[in-house]
Amino acid sequence: MHDAENDKHMIIAPEVSAPRLTRKVVGVDQNGANVDMSVIEERPLTIFLNSREIVTAMTIGDYPEYLALGFLRNQRMLDPNEEILGVDYDEELETVVVRTAVETDYEEKLSKKTRTSGCAVGTVFGDIMDGLDAVVLPKVAVQTSWLYTLSKKINTTPSLYLEAGAVHATVLCSQDRPLVYMEDVGRHNAVDKVAGWMLSEKQTAADKILYTTGRLTSEMVIKTALMGIPVLVSRSGFTAWGVELANQVGLTLVGRMKGKRFVCLSGNDRLQWDHTNDEDAQ
Amino acid sequence: MHDAENDKHMIIAPEVSAPRLTRKVVGVDQNGANVDMSVIEERPLTIFLNSREIVTAMTIGDYPEYLALGFLRNQRMLDPNEEILGVDYDEELETVVVRTAVETDYEEKLSKKTRTSGCAVGTVFGDIMDGLDAVVLPKVAVQTSWLYTLSKKINTTPSLYLEAGAVHATVLCSQDRPLVYMEDVGRHNAVDKVAGWMLSEKQTAADKILYTTGRLTSEMVIKTALMGIPVLVSRSGFTAWGVELANQVGLTLVGRMKGKRFVCLSGNDRLQWDHTNDEDAQ
Repeated sequence: MHDAENDKHMIIAPEVSAPRLTRKVVGVDQNGANVDMSVIEERPLTIFLNSREIVTAMTIGDYPEYLALGFLRNQRMLDPNEEILGVDYDEELETVVVRTAVETDYEEKLSKKTRTSGCAVGTVFGDIMDGLDAVVLPKVAVQTSWLYTLSKKINTTPSLYLEAGAVHATVLCSQDRPLVYMEDVGRHNAVDKVAGWMLSEKQTAADKILYTTGRLTSEMVIKTALMGIPVLVSRSGFTAWGVELANQVGLTLVGRMKGKRFVCLSGNDRLQWDHTNDEDAQ
Repeated sequence: MHDAENDKHMIIAPEVSAPRLTRKVVGVDQNGANVDMSVIEERPLTIFLNSREIVTAMTIGDYPEYLALGFLRNQRMLDPNEEILGVDYDEELETVVVRTAVETDYEEKLSKKTRTSGCAVGTVFGDIMDGLDAVVLPKVAVQTSWLYTLSKKINTTPSLYLEAGAVHATVLCSQDRPLVYMEDVGRHNAVDKVAGWMLSEKQTAADKILYTTGRLTSEMVIKTALMGIPVLVSRSGFTAWGVELANQVGLTLVGRMKGKRFVCLSGNDRLQWDHTNDEDAQ
């Protein structure tokens, strides 16, 4: 099962055998016969920014620190240059606290809000849209052969998805190499964990490609653009607003990537057609 | 394409030809050839409970009133017996305001919260878990042949999914008949729209089956149980906490329903095996 070729370039590969991520359960099948199966774990994780409780995410529970950092960054609650004093995960309390040296812009804004405006989600959403205007994505070239190679490597890598199903993956790639392969019950958690890893490891974004198993919605496009990654690839489909935002911000958006087929609905100027393959389409 | 047999029992069927729900876009395929395709719309809808802004949901935009009612009900921000004065949708502002005769319990609770406890999401989540203890699901019988029939009818009904992809469906059923077929970019929106319809139409829940194309997570199980529906069926997989909660609350949880196969991981005492089919499994 294990493909050494896939893993040797990966910095983080799926933890298929981690006992904390799946659970054996018993049930019955369509004929009433007993069946044992592996199902994916899902647990709450409450993210704090300093003393402020921000959100409770449902997650498989790996990489809570990356999830918290990436979530706060992708919600623009955390500036990329913010000085981070620590990220403290408490397994028993199911909390992560991200501590910054000074109160963040977000906290300051939130404390100015009137009480009646309610949940922060709406406000933050508006802020995120504003942030897109500042994004300039680099004009790198992407060879179409990389996309086929990535798709094949990612889909044949032993994963929690193959083991237990019910998870989405987001994979940070460089050219035709998957680097960081994150999975989660929430597809947004998977991309947030990648973002948290990039922030922690001070990774460049301009030379990366992001692959997701999930749909290409506005939120996926916004997150990818805010992360500074110029190319987003998925085996799933598109939403109209996802396509519109990708065009607006100049993101290369490739979807329905299956076998040797794909559709590009934004930013096809980055593509270099080094592999045309009508005859061997799968 | 149109299957009259499917639709004649449906109260709400997918609006495949509604121009507001999909958009034609142009792109290129894997060979650089131009392609036209339909993609699903996705637009923000901000839900208010009286004067309080609650959340901005990303939705395809049909049935905003049902979505708002169902969301508030499924978040336990609205009591089933709450006197609702009106549900006002403003297409231009992209808002829905649900007005109640008196301030709701939720609003009262929220106004007592200290400011520092931040976004309401975490708090509400705790409340939802508490609400599960009060749920008693009726011991109705479910014939396994209904599940096969439902699965076939639902998956062959002309739908936005077949037309444009990138949506999830939730279908309210009675025995082997799909009654209300809701689709949305957010799978939780689809179930909330069903809940809003049930609340508006004062439907009984005990005799219903809920079908979803999405995964059987804790949140799907919680919503179904709070709606009072004893059976939840999906073609997708399970999470461990979804299974645990379903067992705790006595919900029949059927997943991986494809062709004539399924797995039941909770509440199989409701199943009546009227159709055993090893020989014709697909």
